[in-house]
Amino acid sequence: MDQPDPLDRLFATVASRRGADPTSSYTASLFARGRPRIAQKLGEEAVETVIAALRGDERAIVPEAADLLYHLMVLLADAGLTLDEVRAELVRREGVSGHDEKAARGGPLPLSFRPE
Amino acid sequence: MDQPDPLDRLFATVASRRGADPTSSYTASLFARGRPRIAQKLGEEAVETVIAALRGDERAIVPEAADLLYHLMVLLADAGLTLDEVRAELVRREGVSGHDEKAARGGPLPLSFRPE
Amino acid sequence: MDQPDPLDRLFATVASRRGADPTSSYTASLFARGRPRIAQKLGEEAVETVIAALRGDERAIVPEAADLLYHLMVLLADAGLTLDEVRAELVRREGVSGHDEKAARGGPLPLSFRPE
Amino acid sequence: MDQPDPLDRLFATVASRRGADPTSSYTASLFARGRPRIAQKLGEEAVETVIAALRGDERAIVPEAADLLYHLMVLLADAGLTLDEVRAELVRREGVSGHDEKAARGGPLPLSFRPE
Repeated sequence: MDQPDPLDRLFATVASRRGADPTSSYTASLFARGRPRIAQKLGEEAVETVIAALRGDERAIVPEAADLLYHLMVLLADAGLTLDEVRAELVRREGVSGHDEKAARGGPLPLSFRPE
Repeated sequence: MDQPDPLDRLFATVASRRGADPTSSYTASLFARGRPRIAQKLGEEAVETVIAALRGDERAIVPEAADLLYHLMVLLADAGLTLDEVRAELVRREGVSGHDEKAARGGPLPLSFRPE
Repeated sequence: MDQPDPLDRLFATVASRRGADPTSSYTASLFARGRPRIAQKLGEEAVETVIAALRGDERAIVPEAADLLYHLMVLLADAGLTLDEVRAELVRREGVSGHDEKAARGGPLPLSFRPE
Repeated sequence: MDQPDPLDRLFATVASRRGADPTSSYTASLFARGRPRIAQKLGEEAVETVIAALRGDERAIVPEAADLLYHLMVLLADAGLTLDEVRAELVRREGVSGHDEKAARGGPLPLSFRPE
């Protein structure tokens, strides 16, 4: 009841595994292996999502999106960040156009977005 | 009040842009350019998240995670899928170990996860 | 003597594995698993190269670059293409600036390069 | 005559741009922007190669493979490495099976390959 959103429930579970015995769960083993490995897994799941997106079987995207979200949560937790901080960033962007966001960043990095 | 979660609010906004005038917003322009371009942007944002994860500035991860989530939502909406379908997949996995999940899939694809 | 370049020797070896018994070699097994899997492996090796590039141990880049090149060759061979066709593309670009190359493509895809 | 291989000619050109005026060429500007940006471009080109690999137009793979090779060379040069060091790594692996290579590395990193 306090956390009806499965995303928050998953994040809480993931975060609780930091520092746990690496043999106790896959999540705990990921934390134990460290940041480069966590980043690697995130990148690999993104590659799988890209491939699923192009295969013509839309339902195949769902498990890959779930894998990607899970590994993103592991990264956030490993960095001492929370899902709510990402939500806050999204709220901050509401009502600002993607073009203005790009201009505000100023740099040569690729276009960010706005939920416009 | 009906959608207190910024993630749902963002997804609703994103989904509402399907079929809109491509010049009306960045989101609408992404839908207009089609699936390969949406998949490409998702992959690029994942690369940026990986790089942010390794740069030693934890706060830099937040905007990249937001970009990645946004483009994942565009992909889901483009495929006629919803964020709730990803939530349902996560709920389905609760209480199942990553190892069992892997065995259930049976195939040679890399390890999926369980919020164990 | 006929193929002093290890890249050509590797490509010839890779290409010779097309259609071979999948249990006879890792390369043959990759061909047997098909294009999406080959593309997935290429993407994964690129992620590993990106991570190696940021870890501060320059020597660690070499084996990842070798892995990436190998999987690129598998992709080329799977598509009926050759390393020489990539060389021809590079020769075609010699003496043309990256900016002009971009203009020639005309589209919204990211900047290509010229060995300028 | 000394460098009949376009790959070596390209690498020599790329390497010669290190430290050059960033406005003098795209390559020089990449070096000026530094390692994370070079790694990001490599990752993005890999994403484009993956997408080209799945689009059903085999010829579209060639320019993406050329882009990927070029950015790999920029990374190597930025790290003070050479294309010949990658060749040496490939020669070192000749005659060793992918499985043995994996065992030799010993770690949890994904399967490397052997030109077996």
